[in-house]
Amino acid sequence: MSKMSRLFLTVLGLFLLGGLFSSNVLAAGDLDSVIEAQMYNRAIHIMAMLLLGFGFLMVFVRGYGLSALTATYMLVAVSIPGYVLLKALGVFGHAATGVESLILAEFAAASLLICAGAVLGRLKMWQYMVLALFFLPAYMLNEWVLLDGGWGLIAHDAFVDTGGSIVIHAFGALFGLGVAVSMTTHGDRELPIESDKTSDRFSLLGSMVLWVFWPSFCAALVVPEMIPKTVMNVVFALCGSTLLTYLATVLLRRSIDAADIANATLAGGVAIGSTCDQISLPLAFCVGAVAGFASTFGFAVIQETLQRGLRLVDTCGVSNLHGIPGLLGGLAALLLVGGIDKEAQGLGIVITIVIALATGLLAGKLLSFTGHRRQSYEDSEEFGG
Amino acid sequence: MSKMSRLFLTVLGLFLLGGLFSSNVLAAGDLDSVIEAQMYNRAIHIMAMLLLGFGFLMVFVRGYGLSALTATYMLVAVSIPGYVLLKALGVFGHAATGVESLILAEFAAASLLICAGAVLGRLKMWQYMVLALFFLPAYMLNEWVLLDGGWGLIAHDAFVDTGGSIVIHAFGALFGLGVAVSMTTHGDRELPIESDKTSDRFSLLGSMVLWVFWPSFCAALVVPEMIPKTVMNVVFALCGSTLLTYLATVLLRRSIDAADIANATLAGGVAIGSTCDQISLPLAFCVGAVAGFASTFGFAVIQETLQRGLRLVDTCGVSNLHGIPGLLGGLAALLLVGGIDKEAQGLGIVITIVIALATGLLAGKLLSFTGHRRQSYEDSEEFGG
Amino acid sequence: MSKMSRLFLTVLGLFLLGGLFSSNVLAAGDLDSVIEAQMYNRAIHIMAMLLLGFGFLMVFVRGYGLSALTATYMLVAVSIPGYVLLKALGVFGHAATGVESLILAEFAAASLLICAGAVLGRLKMWQYMVLALFFLPAYMLNEWVLLDGGWGLIAHDAFVDTGGSIVIHAFGALFGLGVAVSMTTHGDRELPIESDKTSDRFSLLGSMVLWVFWPSFCAALVVPEMIPKTVMNVVFALCGSTLLTYLATVLLRRSIDAADIANATLAGGVAIGSTCDQISLPLAFCVGAVAGFASTFGFAVIQETLQRGLRLVDTCGVSNLHGIPGLLGGLAALLLVGGIDKEAQGLGIVITIVIALATGLLAGKLLSFTGHRRQSYEDSEEFGG
Repeated sequence: MSKMSRLFLTVLGLFLLGGLFSSNVLAAGDLDSVIEAQMYNRAIHIMAMLLLGFGFLMVFVRGYGLSALTATYMLVAVSIPGYVLLKALGVFGHAATGVESLILAEFAAASLLICAGAVLGRLKMWQYMVLALFFLPAYMLNEWVLLDGGWGLIAHDAFVDTGGSIVIHAFGALFGLGVAVSMTTHGDRELPIESDKTSDRFSLLGSMVLWVFWPSFCAALVVPEMIPKTVMNVVFALCGSTLLTYLATVLLRRSIDAADIANATLAGGVAIGSTCDQISLPLAFCVGAVAGFASTFGFAVIQETLQRGLRLVDTCGVSNLHGIPGLLGGLAALLLVGGIDKEAQGLGIVITIVIALATGLLAGKLLSFTGHRRQSYEDSEEFGG
Repeated sequence: MSKMSRLFLTVLGLFLLGGLFSSNVLAAGDLDSVIEAQMYNRAIHIMAMLLLGFGFLMVFVRGYGLSALTATYMLVAVSIPGYVLLKALGVFGHAATGVESLILAEFAAASLLICAGAVLGRLKMWQYMVLALFFLPAYMLNEWVLLDGGWGLIAHDAFVDTGGSIVIHAFGALFGLGVAVSMTTHGDRELPIESDKTSDRFSLLGSMVLWVFWPSFCAALVVPEMIPKTVMNVVFALCGSTLLTYLATVLLRRSIDAADIANATLAGGVAIGSTCDQISLPLAFCVGAVAGFASTFGFAVIQETLQRGLRLVDTCGVSNLHGIPGLLGGLAALLLVGGIDKEAQGLGIVITIVIALATGLLAGKLLSFTGHRRQSYEDSEEFGG
Repeated sequence: MSKMSRLFLTVLGLFLLGGLFSSNVLAAGDLDSVIEAQMYNRAIHIMAMLLLGFGFLMVFVRGYGLSALTATYMLVAVSIPGYVLLKALGVFGHAATGVESLILAEFAAASLLICAGAVLGRLKMWQYMVLALFFLPAYMLNEWVLLDGGWGLIAHDAFVDTGGSIVIHAFGALFGLGVAVSMTTHGDRELPIESDKTSDRFSLLGSMVLWVFWPSFCAALVVPEMIPKTVMNVVFALCGSTLLTYLATVLLRRSIDAADIANATLAGGVAIGSTCDQISLPLAFCVGAVAGFASTFGFAVIQETLQRGLRLVDTCGVSNLHGIPGLLGGLAALLLVGGIDKEAQGLGIVITIVIALATGLLAGKLLSFTGHRRQSYEDSEEFGG
């Protein structure tokens, strides 16, 4: 019996020791808070992209810088609480919580800012806010159908679009084109959109803010283990589009164009969105390179034809920066990601095109009933002397 | 006995297995370092607010941009090591260590920059640094009394002000008004403070940097579990003030004012400081909305009366951006936070007003003995051709 | 025997309980991902320094802002994938993986941007990219010899340079001076390099971005436990150089010089690189202060003599901002860090000077065969009307 009791005491002692040790050990809950706080960091990076990035990129219009920045402020201030509120009311699927809900709202704001870029300078300030109210439900509908199994068309998680090439970029650009069809007056089609050296430098500032924080945009909702791969892919895609933008601008225009440099350099970020956590580094570089060339080709060659054909003006060329590269990105997932549900991917792209154009055209029609500015691209109409 | 020994071996084996497993388990100390490194991230965000945010917000004065940025550099470079040094010497309470000490020093620098905004353009460059030397002990005294139980007036942790509506914003603004009383010459009161389109765009850049990183300012010292709530509240408050600023500027002025947009949009961040980790999301939006309207009302209506009444010039309108919304924020805690020590909260606000105005007036008086600029709001007086 | 079985059941029960508990306990691998994601945050801060920081700092040249920003884009887009590719091919040592590989590539890009600052405005756009191709292998050779035991000259970990005073800053500046010797035409030596108020404000923007994120640059590869100390030292060094820059610019020039403020304020960051995780806070302040004074002295006094003596133009004054303070930083490690291998430290500095100047001169000679711009410091030569 003394052996038994010795054994018992040994076991007990070991357990007490273990207890002592384990009191200093972490529960998973502690780390979860840290991981969410880390996600918050990426949410702040995206906020920098929304205000400083999109905002200053649009300052390239010489006489409309103060309006562009004010509109950016208002669009963000409407869409972030608006998205969270609509989700909380149960519109199109369940609401996320905490930092995730903030990031999803920021994604909606990003798509809205892209859309607004198509009609920049031709809306009154309050019309931007009305535009936001039209845009949000349409965006949420498309997001719900593609990513959350809405209407049962596409299975949850079947559509590959981590960084939002289709859901955020292509949707925003196509909705914007729809609005532009109705909101472009005859006078606007004759009016040159002018930049100067200072407005171009501000625009490049916005461009660089977007470039710098783009990896956080794509990795915003990615689990910690996948962040290094995702981030490297985004950086390489951006390097690819930056280099090819230079090549293309020189080849196609015989001189460097500041707007190409400010915009098409970012096409790699747009296009890598769908596949950023899936493909290899060299492929990521190539996706970016193709997108950079295609985007510059859009600015230098396609834009004028498109605008004349559709009788619209796309102020910031969002069809070239977000439309073409966004669609390219969605298609890249089809071609490059193994084991993908090709039907779901293709269907999602088609649905996005249909919803975005249809709701955009409708929104533009409704918006045009509320009137037009007297003078496009001019701060002075709304800002005091 | 063979059963006994089999049992013993089993237990031993399990323990060895457990030991093997536990060697791969984390001690809490590892996570503490990660949490502090995460706090460092917020410290960097605040640094961006100090230099890029406050600095560029003050560039709106057309001919004084280089001076405003240089003054920002100098005020930060004096106050951060100054605060850490004074704390290390035991002035007004114990020193924090590591990243926390950096954040507390940055808070002091933020308050100082607010104060300097009241007299911007009317001090010589070295006078800003002397101002910093007057400001720091006064700020530290007030911080010590309100937050660290100094003089035994307010119990430790009784005063609710996580994001510094009172301790940082209201204090800085009121101290600055005190200084402005003495440092405004007769000539200054006649002199217009002019901005142009480029200085306004730079000012909006500073504004947006402040907006973007404000959540990190309020959540700087918050534990990881509370970060999501705090951050969402700050973002919603900023959205509220941004929207109401637009509404108020159009209602009160019949046109959009660039300075209102650059400044009053931030009032939500100022006002949510006291309650950012306490109230609900809809309330946070409302606190921001009220602050945004009040701040715009301050810029559009109160400022001129106040300046004429007190015979001073408040260059950046810090009384409207930091004074009114800061006090509103402190009062919001009184009204909206359950279980608050109302006496302590009220007392803390009164003490801040008294200390800030008294020490500010004294500092202004002393500073005015060292002379005045020949020309206000002009880089050329100190910068070479 | 019933006691035995009771004991057995007790032990079993405790183990099951323990198992339940431990399933909620973290393995070290989870935290590793979080630590790498945290390192990613610093990688993004460095990216902001590369594009927004170095890019806008170079916008001070009045008529060359668009080119400076475009060149920054191209240099980053060539050097980051270039460095990763060369490392993957086994050039000069083994490749790092994940975020560490990104940070090492960013360090190379930083050094390249410093080098390009010496010849800014005198290369055609594609020549910057050729410069990058010459620069990368030379940089990687020096890095390999100093830090990775290349050629067996300096033991691994013997050379103290956490934040890259020598490996990044001094190397880039000296390589740039080598290139400048060949790429400065007779005409360039007569041509004034002009800035204006707007280009200076943009330059101060770049300066502040660099200042704000510099702590992340130095702490990029530091373990979490050492981050607070490293960061505080960098901030104090920057405060020291900022204050002494003001003092020196006023003493040496009798007025404040905007270029001094934009550049020499950063000398503390350059000089603290070698010792940022080693020395005490007051020493860090002093290292920064000495570097700030020396850098301003370089801009105000040495630069003209140096340029006339070497018949070159150093557009951005990189010898004053990165050359002198970088070498000072390397020497500071010799003097201030206890237990350092003084021979290795001294040898590393000498090797850097030799490799940088030799390869820089060679690169400049080769580059000059590809021709010169017609007009220096003018966007219009390459950007369309």
